[in-house]
Amino acid sequence: MEIDIPEVKAEVEAAFAGYEAALVANDVAALDGFFRADARTIRYGGGENLYGIEEIRQFRKGRSPAGLARTLERTAITTYGRDFAVASTLFRREGDGGRLGRQQQTWVRFPEGWRVVAAHVSTLPVSPLPVGTP
Amino acid sequence: MEIDIPEVKAEVEAAFAGYEAALVANDVAALDGFFRADARTIRYGGGENLYGIEEIRQFRKGRSPAGLARTLERTAITTYGRDFAVASTLFRREGDGGRLGRQQQTWVRFPEGWRVVAAHVSTLPVSPLPVGTP
Repeated sequence: MEIDIPEVKAEVEAAFAGYEAALVANDVAALDGFFRADARTIRYGGGENLYGIEEIRQFRKGRSPAGLARTLERTAITTYGRDFAVASTLFRREGDGGRLGRQQQTWVRFPEGWRVVAAHVSTLPVSPLPVGTP
Repeated sequence: MEIDIPEVKAEVEAAFAGYEAALVANDVAALDGFFRADARTIRYGGGENLYGIEEIRQFRKGRSPAGLARTLERTAITTYGRDFAVASTLFRREGDGGRLGRQQQTWVRFPEGWRVVAAHVSTLPVSPLPVGTP
């Protein structure tokens, strides 16, 4: 299995960037579209565990659009073959008390395009990264 | 892409069970073997962000073997094609103050076998699951 085929990686990077733009804009329709519409799609969020696209959609609808802006750090996207990828990133939000966020997504290519089939978001009560962290 | 091919799912379920047994026994050598030996393997843990197999191995070596026993809830394994899978589970540990753990792993089949290429573990300060949760 070939890892990080350049054109595949470019596709996933574009999908990831599209998701990020939709997230900070709280574009609920777009966000819904990035997650696979299936009962097996799972999203463990910052304060909730969502099983299936219906629970995910309900959560998006009810979310406050305030304070979603964030900066990413150490984003790493790796593709496996032509249809599978993982995107991991750390993030920080202003006013989040210095907490460090972590977001990890599994992307799969379907006939309709690249979709997130699993995601996990959490935060740690840490402030600056250790000295020497690349 | 076929989802949840029975024999593929059975393979991943066996790998997942093997990982779980190694985890609660703190079998460091076995745990190392389940994660792909590659600089692109990422593990966001309960209190640390590990990039690459070397950081993951260092963490395993330094981990206290005490109090790793846990019970799993709502474990969901989904396979995509013959070489990719996601395993998500909630978990609880005694003495963890009622915190609810979440673990999500992305598994890929390599010539050497099924390996975790990305994992994310976190906990939420919630106690019982809501009434009616399946």
